[in-house]
Amino acid sequence: MRDEIMREELKEECGVFGIVSREGRASRTTYYGLFALQHRGQESAGIAVSEDGDIHLHKAMGLVGEVFDDAKLEELKGDLAVGHVRYSTSGDSSVINAQPLVFKTRQGTIALCHNGNLANSLALRESLKEKGSIFQTTVDTEVIAALLAGSSDSDLVISIRSVMKELKGAYALIIMTRDRLIGVRDPLGIRPLCIGRKEKDLMLSSESCAFETVGGSLLRDVMPGEIVVIDRSGMKSYPPEEKNEEKLCIFEFIYFGRPDSVMKGQSLYMSRKRAGKILCREVPADADFVCSVPDSGTPSAIGFSEASGIPFLEGLVKNRYVGRTFIKPSQNQREIGVALKLNVLEEVVRGKSIVLVDDSIVRGTTIKRLISRLRACGAGKIHLRISAPPVMWPCFFGIDTPSRDELLGARFSVEEIGRLVGADSIGYLSLEGLIEATSSSGFCTGCFSGQYPLDIEGADGRYALDTAQKVRT
Amino acid sequence: MRDEIMREELKEECGVFGIVSREGRASRTTYYGLFALQHRGQESAGIAVSEDGDIHLHKAMGLVGEVFDDAKLEELKGDLAVGHVRYSTSGDSSVINAQPLVFKTRQGTIALCHNGNLANSLALRESLKEKGSIFQTTVDTEVIAALLAGSSDSDLVISIRSVMKELKGAYALIIMTRDRLIGVRDPLGIRPLCIGRKEKDLMLSSESCAFETVGGSLLRDVMPGEIVVIDRSGMKSYPPEEKNEEKLCIFEFIYFGRPDSVMKGQSLYMSRKRAGKILCREVPADADFVCSVPDSGTPSAIGFSEASGIPFLEGLVKNRYVGRTFIKPSQNQREIGVALKLNVLEEVVRGKSIVLVDDSIVRGTTIKRLISRLRACGAGKIHLRISAPPVMWPCFFGIDTPSRDELLGARFSVEEIGRLVGADSIGYLSLEGLIEATSSSGFCTGCFSGQYPLDIEGADGRYALDTAQKVRT
Amino acid sequence: MRDEIMREELKEECGVFGIVSREGRASRTTYYGLFALQHRGQESAGIAVSEDGDIHLHKAMGLVGEVFDDAKLEELKGDLAVGHVRYSTSGDSSVINAQPLVFKTRQGTIALCHNGNLANSLALRESLKEKGSIFQTTVDTEVIAALLAGSSDSDLVISIRSVMKELKGAYALIIMTRDRLIGVRDPLGIRPLCIGRKEKDLMLSSESCAFETVGGSLLRDVMPGEIVVIDRSGMKSYPPEEKNEEKLCIFEFIYFGRPDSVMKGQSLYMSRKRAGKILCREVPADADFVCSVPDSGTPSAIGFSEASGIPFLEGLVKNRYVGRTFIKPSQNQREIGVALKLNVLEEVVRGKSIVLVDDSIVRGTTIKRLISRLRACGAGKIHLRISAPPVMWPCFFGIDTPSRDELLGARFSVEEIGRLVGADSIGYLSLEGLIEATSSSGFCTGCFSGQYPLDIEGADGRYALDTAQKVRT
Amino acid sequence: MRDEIMREELKEECGVFGIVSREGRASRTTYYGLFALQHRGQESAGIAVSEDGDIHLHKAMGLVGEVFDDAKLEELKGDLAVGHVRYSTSGDSSVINAQPLVFKTRQGTIALCHNGNLANSLALRESLKEKGSIFQTTVDTEVIAALLAGSSDSDLVISIRSVMKELKGAYALIIMTRDRLIGVRDPLGIRPLCIGRKEKDLMLSSESCAFETVGGSLLRDVMPGEIVVIDRSGMKSYPPEEKNEEKLCIFEFIYFGRPDSVMKGQSLYMSRKRAGKILCREVPADADFVCSVPDSGTPSAIGFSEASGIPFLEGLVKNRYVGRTFIKPSQNQREIGVALKLNVLEEVVRGKSIVLVDDSIVRGTTIKRLISRLRACGAGKIHLRISAPPVMWPCFFGIDTPSRDELLGARFSVEEIGRLVGADSIGYLSLEGLIEATSSSGFCTGCFSGQYPLDIEGADGRYALDTAQKVRT
Ligand SMILES: Nc1ncnc2c1ncn2[C@@H]1O[C@H](COP(=O)(O)OP(=O)(O)O)[C@@H](O)[C@H]1O
Ligand SMILES: Nc1ncnc2c1ncn2[C@@H]1O[C@H](COP(=O)(O)OP(=O)(O)O)[C@@H](O)[C@H]1O
Ligand SMILES: Nc1ncnc2c1ncn2[C@@H]1O[C@H](COP(=O)(O)OP(=O)(O)O)[C@@H](O)[C@H]1O
Ligand SMILES: Nc1ncnc2c1ncn2[C@@H]1O[C@H](COP(=O)(O)OP(=O)(O)O)[C@@H](O)[C@H]1O
Ligand code: SF4
Ligand code: SF4
Ligand code: SF4
Ligand code: SF4
Ligand SMILES: [Mg+2]
Ligand SMILES: [Mg+2]
Ligand SMILES: [Mg+2]
Ligand SMILES: [Mg+2]
Repeated sequence: MRDEIMREELKEECGVFGIVSREGRASRTTYYGLFALQHRGQESAGIAVSEDGDIHLHKAMGLVGEVFDDAKLEELKGDLAVGHVRYSTSGDSSVINAQPLVFKTRQGTIALCHNGNLANSLALRESLKEKGSIFQTTVDTEVIAALLAGSSDSDLVISIRSVMKELKGAYALIIMTRDRLIGVRDPLGIRPLCIGRKEKDLMLSSESCAFETVGGSLLRDVMPGEIVVIDRSGMKSYPPEEKNEEKLCIFEFIYFGRPDSVMKGQSLYMSRKRAGKILCREVPADADFVCSVPDSGTPSAIGFSEASGIPFLEGLVKNRYVGRTFIKPSQNQREIGVALKLNVLEEVVRGKSIVLVDDSIVRGTTIKRLISRLRACGAGKIHLRISAPPVMWPCFFGIDTPSRDELLGARFSVEEIGRLVGADSIGYLSLEGLIEATSSSGFCTGCFSGQYPLDIEGADGRYALDTAQKVRT
Repeated sequence: MRDEIMREELKEECGVFGIVSREGRASRTTYYGLFALQHRGQESAGIAVSEDGDIHLHKAMGLVGEVFDDAKLEELKGDLAVGHVRYSTSGDSSVINAQPLVFKTRQGTIALCHNGNLANSLALRESLKEKGSIFQTTVDTEVIAALLAGSSDSDLVISIRSVMKELKGAYALIIMTRDRLIGVRDPLGIRPLCIGRKEKDLMLSSESCAFETVGGSLLRDVMPGEIVVIDRSGMKSYPPEEKNEEKLCIFEFIYFGRPDSVMKGQSLYMSRKRAGKILCREVPADADFVCSVPDSGTPSAIGFSEASGIPFLEGLVKNRYVGRTFIKPSQNQREIGVALKLNVLEEVVRGKSIVLVDDSIVRGTTIKRLISRLRACGAGKIHLRISAPPVMWPCFFGIDTPSRDELLGARFSVEEIGRLVGADSIGYLSLEGLIEATSSSGFCTGCFSGQYPLDIEGADGRYALDTAQKVRT
Repeated sequence: MRDEIMREELKEECGVFGIVSREGRASRTTYYGLFALQHRGQESAGIAVSEDGDIHLHKAMGLVGEVFDDAKLEELKGDLAVGHVRYSTSGDSSVINAQPLVFKTRQGTIALCHNGNLANSLALRESLKEKGSIFQTTVDTEVIAALLAGSSDSDLVISIRSVMKELKGAYALIIMTRDRLIGVRDPLGIRPLCIGRKEKDLMLSSESCAFETVGGSLLRDVMPGEIVVIDRSGMKSYPPEEKNEEKLCIFEFIYFGRPDSVMKGQSLYMSRKRAGKILCREVPADADFVCSVPDSGTPSAIGFSEASGIPFLEGLVKNRYVGRTFIKPSQNQREIGVALKLNVLEEVVRGKSIVLVDDSIVRGTTIKRLISRLRACGAGKIHLRISAPPVMWPCFFGIDTPSRDELLGARFSVEEIGRLVGADSIGYLSLEGLIEATSSSGFCTGCFSGQYPLDIEGADGRYALDTAQKVRT
Repeated sequence: MRDEIMREELKEECGVFGIVSREGRASRTTYYGLFALQHRGQESAGIAVSEDGDIHLHKAMGLVGEVFDDAKLEELKGDLAVGHVRYSTSGDSSVINAQPLVFKTRQGTIALCHNGNLANSLALRESLKEKGSIFQTTVDTEVIAALLAGSSDSDLVISIRSVMKELKGAYALIIMTRDRLIGVRDPLGIRPLCIGRKEKDLMLSSESCAFETVGGSLLRDVMPGEIVVIDRSGMKSYPPEEKNEEKLCIFEFIYFGRPDSVMKGQSLYMSRKRAGKILCREVPADADFVCSVPDSGTPSAIGFSEASGIPFLEGLVKNRYVGRTFIKPSQNQREIGVALKLNVLEEVVRGKSIVLVDDSIVRGTTIKRLISRLRACGAGKIHLRISAPPVMWPCFFGIDTPSRDELLGARFSVEEIGRLVGADSIGYLSLEGLIEATSSSGFCTGCFSGQYPLDIEGADGRYALDTAQKVRT
């Protein structure tokens, strides 16, 4: 089981990848693409291919490298493929929920991969059930498939367009039919999806880093509300009827996206570094050196160092083998916790004052223990700087946020947080600073601002839950 | 992979078991019940339980003893349970098709287990797809669930009754809701389903041997077309509106059913033994001893011996470890084939004339090699006697028959078959004799007589296939 | 875990098989040979091959069909192979103890497979340790290898001969060097080992049934104390210097050996049947029918029926899927126990008096529950007849006997046993009758008579244990 | 299979950890200790515990987190434990070679863990075999155990001392008896071993980072030639009779050791950083920024940046999920190779001149492809700087070096190497500079200098091999 200490950050829910390949090695390229997207989900992986009208599927719990071997890839022949990696919350951690899902519908057999979260999925499920639909999984993908299958139009693109009118929330979809790959991004573009090319082959991916990994390159983002159809003859775009402003999840820039990915034309790495610079401008600090909480804090820490002139040093070493499976330290081995993941370089920190930079604080457990270990190793003043604002609100669009009473930012003032985690001073980046750092605009910032890009009053599920918990608090 | 030599008989497709238990150890009893039904399917096993309105499920490829361990059974708490063992044809040998299937519908969450085959499932699928249904599996169970979910009635029994009007074919169903277990048998009663009791607990099972195994006993068969509802307070029966004559698959008596099961009030063992006696009356033979092809031929061989006065001796030993997985002998190890499964007791057969009794001949491969090995071991005259008529027609009701051009009985006269397999004389039991042996009436005898209990003109799938192949021949 | 109910008989410890093959498919033939010997051990399986002087090995816990797949056999190239199946007592159930064991010694690399038990292995281990040997397993095979390696002779056969002088107990060995297969049987021939042929290929096996399974045939038994060397050019025999009378374990005839095996030139099946006849002569009984406890009781039951003229009927059905792994029924599911393995055919037994025949009684648990179930199904008088004498003493030669205070035969008189298990009358075959049944002579009968073929006064390990327990009683 | 691209560096062979624990949770602490040493071996893991005189063992192929789960750790009770992680060369990648090895000897049962390589192991094996020893593994640990067992002394420490006289090469050993943990380091101290404390518990480990991970701290290194005995009452040291100068493998400082480990009182991280500074002094370069090949090149790159004043930037992102198992890109997917592991941050490198720092070059494959990708992303001049001298000679002491004809440093001049890998300029750290960077002395530098700390003329195995290959070249 994944332990709280091992990952106290917010959790992404999925990564998707698809290709129409002229060489016909579609599953193999998808395999490497998923490899590059592994950070978006480590609990299940799957690939579906289309071969002469048949769709073949293999999926299982585990990492991409565990789920597939050479023999399994060999069986997945065909020139169209879609793949998926998934992070699953404990409740539904079953292979039944792994993706791609393959459905036989009146439009033929289709494979679906989805990243995101529908805010109205419970309502949609109920109304579909009323009309006679049955559900075998707990994932939104099945709701989308049921809606598609219910559409009477013979043209799948028209069906998709009409289904999109019913969906409320975040979705980046890849749909594979016998001869086409269709990419769909929600009208607000909350979750990312982009188009890549490798020679004549066209690809779709959650992040551009996958294109480079397979030897290709980024073409452009799928636009909010756009439907993109790729077949053996090329690509066709169906822009949205009415154009919304994009509302890309800003957390992709801060933490989820791999630093070597590009979104909205911006390098995530460079944005994070700029965030560090602005952080230094907004809440400067003086110290012997700037230290990051690796790996996610490093680009901002380097930015902070550049802006402040304070040298950047590595004071913490991350154990690269801390993975999905390991045995949780028992109560009386608490001290083992954070040290399994991060170790202090005593020679670097002893007697030194530190600007400690991380990307965000969610529950605060890790950072608190880390600061206490830094102290035990003789660190002097510790100035904690966070390259994003306090996380204060739940996410309704596919990110697994803890309930508000576990969110430090929702319960305490900035000063209180500093005291709670044991820092000598604390500073968060402002929302404006964060947006400036992206060199762009058009973001969802809901979890920071409480301002969601769409009306979530009627949003179901977790929100209701959260409200209940708020009462409890 | 299972090899042709290992199992050349017809293949059953499923076994189902369910219980409403007052002690709340429903999954454990179901586990043992499935153990007793393991002969009905060895490729996947699953159990679903209902606990406080939630349905929990575990299923996987493998034998019952492999799929479940103590920890997994512990997790399946609840006082209602249904379980399933499945034989799957190679094409759809995937955990996605394993049962029980659990569906969320407007009637709530239901678990379904199914044994049988719908003759009109393709047509139903197409029409459901037209109405917007999506299908994730290739099993009929999903079709039945989709029809149930489409029914607008709030009373599940009424829905079931109306869905039954659309189903054409063989089905023995157990449906589990949050608080009820519902047993359904098709109007012709083609596949078996019976009711058992263990103290105050009521159970449903494909065969009665499962009741004895768990320490209970058979109450009665579910009647053709009957719906039986079991809850914590007892059992309620909904007889069919119009009563059809039962048409139980006669192959359950001949081969599929465990000899210690009782169907139509008759012991299968005793029926098989009577079949041997009648076989002796119809096609007598003289020899030094009567020998069975173990295990399925033994009861009839003993009956033949009793009727003829010729002593029964074991001349063949079956390797009990020939199982699901083993490596197929290669071309130049052909001779290994039948010997892996059956070995000749040379001391018994040498110089002796033999009445060799088996239950049926499908492709004839095993019996041919067996006779040649008996000859090699010095056997004298071999009089082959089969305790059923020649298998001449495909089955549309859940049994995996080879296509007609592989069915010896469909292509050759009885004498030709005798010559082909190398017997000195051959005799089959007549259909009348077979029915007499059951001490009962009301059977499907389609694969022997070509007379099916329902109009299969429009029957889809395999039939079409078979026709195609006939042309090809 | 294997449950007491599932296997209350004595436990064999190993099966060995080896071949020098001209076709070079040695591992494949060995695989099928082990398949035929699977009844001699179900907990681990292994094959070693010799290819151009290198020895390759694969072994693991599990059945032959589970341990090997096509790919693994493909890797085991070479024209010499030895294989092993093992039953292991719980204490040492680890792959470290699985065989073959491969040793690098001054004589080169050798693979060893062993069936049997040294009575002086503890003493040998201690004295070898004194001389500096180290032991990594708990199996006697390693002791034998250490002794061989310690022998200064360059000729392996001379080394073996000299090592045999130190070994006290039962052993059937196959030793594979880079170019030879050497079969060795202890001077008393307690454990079986025989030579087979398939065209020009020579084989060694614990039982002859393996030869037939692979398409070959039995040549002869390895003689007690004989060393047999097989290489690509043929076979060479090194008879023992002084000839002892053979003392083959009589339990091989009664129960361990597959009925289709031949030992001492006698068919085990025919011996068992003769035992049933003599049993009828010695302790006759009158009843409506003779019933066996399948499968081991069947040949004797048929023999009893023939001798008595009382018809043989099957009154019990064995669940063929009761296997190695399954979950033990809990305390309050006691009644499930025996029914999982054996079910009563109520229609056969109701109101009938029965001669119930089994091969032996060890702890008596199964037979007691079985008789009580027969009563519950309405059986009348039950005359229990056992085709061997009471088991009263421990075995020191490779068979896992319970301690004396668990052996019914050691604690109670025959009449008391009859009463304890609930039989109306009871009768055991006499030792003389048993030997007569074998149509042969030269047996160890230690566990019946307490007369062991060699002085076990100094025998170590279990004996000491047993003595301790005797005191406790 | 691990691919050349994934790991082109030299390969460490083992990590060892042991503890005598007062709380009796010895296996659990060992588990976390091995977690911290996972970088020293990823192919097998094992833990042995001593409980009341019995030694229990669990080991298997796989990562620590895969090999152990809670249940397995629970079974490993006891207050003494030793554990091992292993990197294995393909030839002997079998669980038989996994460690700890447990031996029954005249000194009692002992568990052995070993890191290192004996230069005279073949000779020792031969002479032991001559004396009658048998070998079941291919690891040196078994040779050491055989020598120990051959020693006639009843005091294990005296035996160890006398065995050490026969061993030639590198070894860091942990030996566990029923009540003691014994740490042994070869007289030259080639492989590291250190002593740690956690409250009253004493520990042994290959690297000090394991002590911090389990909440303890480093006490001191085991001295070259020292024997350290830890029992429940404390620790006792047996210094070497004659003191050699230490010859610790300098590659531990450069690459093998985790940066947060301390050896010879020096932080490896700080040494690597100093190496970067000296590298700048010795072979300066001018560029827009300093870039490391992560992760191993980073500390030196930061040092180079500090010394030169050229800013440190991350231009490469490492995919953290590139692990043990994945499918090798096929020939026509060559381009995928390096990108799976390392991706270029185009925004950072485009149009910029770069000082590219890595720790060492072995075959040069990775660095060559990496430079070509940097060029493709628009990088300007690339000045390659390596923080160690060219690797020119094989290692005989436990590190898996390719044969000389694959070692770039052995075949080409520095300039040629620069040209071959495509760098605009190239510079290696001098050996003197490297030693200066360690702030210490007493190292083996054999693979750089060809000067080995002991006479390897007679060294067996790989050396002979290498010579042969040299001829071939
Ligand atoms: N593969 C086999 N085929 C046929 N008979 C076997 C086989 N293996 C073992 N036997 C025989 O079966 C008997 C044991 O079977 P059985 O009575 O069913 O089990 P149990 O060990 O529970 O008594 C032995 O006599 C043995 O010779
Ligand atoms: N668990 C069981 N115990 C006893 N008989 C069984 C069991 N399972 C199936 N059978 C019976 O065994 C027969 C099939 O066995 P057999 O002839 O040995 O195999 P095959 O399928 O190869 O013909 C069927 O008649 C079936 O009723
Ligand atoms: N768990 C760890 N945490 C941090 N650094 C590690 C860890 N394990 C190994 N290292 C260090 O990482 C370096 C090797 O990493 P890297 O360069 O990323 O891989 P490669 O072996 O491909 O060169 C070594 O210097 C080693 O000390
Ligand atoms: N494969 C990868 N290579 C490089 N960076 C990655 C990779 N996957 C994720 N990341 C980045 O690492 C960061 C998260 O890493 P880290 O801080 O080490 O873990 P945690 O989730 O515990 O905070 C994210 O910013 C993410 O963009
Ligand atoms: S609420 Fe936060 S995490 Fe969720 S989509 Fe918006 S910015 Fe992203
Ligand atoms: S056709 Fe044959 S196998 Fe099929 S149901 Fe009818 S009798 Fe049974
Ligand atoms: S004591 Fe019994 S079981 Fe043991 S070898 Fe002798 S006859 Fe066989
Ligand atoms: S030769 Fe090189 S790798 Fe080997 S021990 Fe010496 S310094 Fe280390
Ligand atoms: Mg982080
Ligand atoms: Mg049969
Ligand atoms: Mg038996
Ligand atoms: Mg590196």
